[in-house]
Amino acid sequence: MKINALIADDASQPLKAGQVELRDMQADDVKIEILYCGVCHSDLHMARNEWGVSRYPLVPGHEIVGRIVETGESVANFNTGDIVGVGVMVDSCGNCHFCQQQEEQYCAEGFTPTYNGTDKYTGGTTFGGYAQHVVADHRFVVSIPDNLPLNAVAPLLCAGVTVWSPLRHFNVKAGDRVGVIGLGGLGHMAVKLASALGAEVTLFTTSPNKGEDALRLGAKRVVVSRDAEQMAACQTSLDIILDCVAAPHDLDPYLATLKTNGHLVLVGIPDQPHPSPNVTPMVFRRLSITGTSIGSIRETQEMLDFCGQHNITADVEMIKGDETEAAFARMLKSDVKYRFVIDMQKTHW
Amino acid sequence: MKINALIADDASQPLKAGQVELRDMQADDVKIEILYCGVCHSDLHMARNEWGVSRYPLVPGHEIVGRIVETGESVANFNTGDIVGVGVMVDSCGNCHFCQQQEEQYCAEGFTPTYNGTDKYTGGTTFGGYAQHVVADHRFVVSIPDNLPLNAVAPLLCAGVTVWSPLRHFNVKAGDRVGVIGLGGLGHMAVKLASALGAEVTLFTTSPNKGEDALRLGAKRVVVSRDAEQMAACQTSLDIILDCVAAPHDLDPYLATLKTNGHLVLVGIPDQPHPSPNVTPMVFRRLSITGTSIGSIRETQEMLDFCGQHNITADVEMIKGDETEAAFARMLKSDVKYRFVIDMQKTHW
Repeated sequence: MKINALIADDASQPLKAGQVELRDMQADDVKIEILYCGVCHSDLHMARNEWGVSRYPLVPGHEIVGRIVETGESVANFNTGDIVGVGVMVDSCGNCHFCQQQEEQYCAEGFTPTYNGTDKYTGGTTFGGYAQHVVADHRFVVSIPDNLPLNAVAPLLCAGVTVWSPLRHFNVKAGDRVGVIGLGGLGHMAVKLASALGAEVTLFTTSPNKGEDALRLGAKRVVVSRDAEQMAACQTSLDIILDCVAAPHDLDPYLATLKTNGHLVLVGIPDQPHPSPNVTPMVFRRLSITGTSIGSIRETQEMLDFCGQHNITADVEMIKGDETEAAFARMLKSDVKYRFVIDMQKTHW
Repeated sequence: MKINALIADDASQPLKAGQVELRDMQADDVKIEILYCGVCHSDLHMARNEWGVSRYPLVPGHEIVGRIVETGESVANFNTGDIVGVGVMVDSCGNCHFCQQQEEQYCAEGFTPTYNGTDKYTGGTTFGGYAQHVVADHRFVVSIPDNLPLNAVAPLLCAGVTVWSPLRHFNVKAGDRVGVIGLGGLGHMAVKLASALGAEVTLFTTSPNKGEDALRLGAKRVVVSRDAEQMAACQTSLDIILDCVAAPHDLDPYLATLKTNGHLVLVGIPDQPHPSPNVTPMVFRRLSITGTSIGSIRETQEMLDFCGQHNITADVEMIKGDETEAAFARMLKSDVKYRFVIDMQKTHW
């Protein structure tokens, strides 16, 4: 089926409205009319082929909220009219150890990305959420709590679950002391979710002017990471840190703020390696540095339900489809609080 | 009390026999006549002040096996004549979170090292096991199983427990796939202990001629780490790796051999940082890099009991006290299988 979408034709072209072909509905599929799609930094990297793996035409977008308009014959848990979400994955092998454990994000064969992946049925490319519709296996579709503003839910599908997954994996609980590095799309969700879990959150930032916002979002303490005195004042005070900064940076000052047995969790991939961390404090205080990638479908649903209970959504700036390139330009200057979201119903096709 | 010991008078002097003053017996102390003391690489670093923290006169040695010759009035669990061990620690604060949890190696105030530490009673320097006697609080003394050759037990007190602690911390069990990097003092104990726990051990080495030995010690597979084909053949096959090489080296080829959720455990501290590890596989496979320092007294006793049950000791080369400098010289060339042990009863004072 043909759908309307915002398409990058190659790395040097701006996104423009056009049409792409989705697979025909399968028995397990749902077809979703997209209402909102968040603008993740990886959308920009992929549109511009900055990771060298982009396939054109390319339709970005993996923070999708929409309404089901059609269900395949085997779909029992969703109905036409349901408000649902699609995140970073639309399929996985289903058979490996990780899929069996409901950790599809670590599928041994690699999950199918929502866009720029290989469609299991057609062998063609998957297309993302900067579009009027998306078709996905219902097992990769989640329900949206009905008390939340849908536009501000969209970023939860990637930014939200990417920080939720490590918070749960490392069993963060009330009273824990959690550090968050960087107040961007991921960081602002980490502050909200960790504080809603009852943790005491310290936000590390290079921008003193983000302090007020961090406290509003739930942080108990803001530390300007370039201020050696402020950093010294929080030595060995934290149980876990979510490092939400993808640019290369020195990890040692943050390791110093961890208690013995603490975890520094990297959710971003820098384009150049971070400076090599000092092993000495890692050995003497049994510190770990751990990477983590998005989250599972089970965790995504759990996070959305938690957000419904705690009235949590992302802080967003709404745009129309033809404003995406301008939004990309502002993202490059970190000028967004804290996620752009495309309103598909206000987008001209 | 004055005792005979092998003493470094400064960083440039060879060890020589002489006398140092130990504290008088306290109510909780035992006095041990030392039978054997292992020669740890850190003894060499400290004798030469290579870490810049040495205090002279310095008596190295923290892999001590001996016989109790005197007990303080509050000591109920040891008797004169008991064969016991002392490792890297002889005291700690006893009150902090970690001491209360029996993880004295992470004592918030820092444990008292067996040598080159500050004696809690006298304020003077602690002296190690290259000596005829040592005095230590009985809470830092462990029992030696009576079926093991005592000379080959000595290295268990540091090398043994340093690899045992992470094996237990990460819950290594039968059927797990464990990598060990480097077949030296620590590495050869890691191979023995992990395989006795039922794990399938892969030994990584730069020296193809160590392969036969590794198999004899319990490894199932030997991989020459400079051989790209051999490394490629064990991609994503291991649950955990104990990295027993203190020299700076590239961690990325080892990260590639870990399964999703795998742990690379660093037990050594390089004098220069390792090349910075690549974050990408860490994120996509939720890998961790974790440091770990020696082990607790509880773990040391547990490890010794396990060694008694499984008939495990170190592979050792015996020397007399006046051969220590020659042993240091051979250690610098990695020419030892796999630990020198000083026989104190054959040492002239």
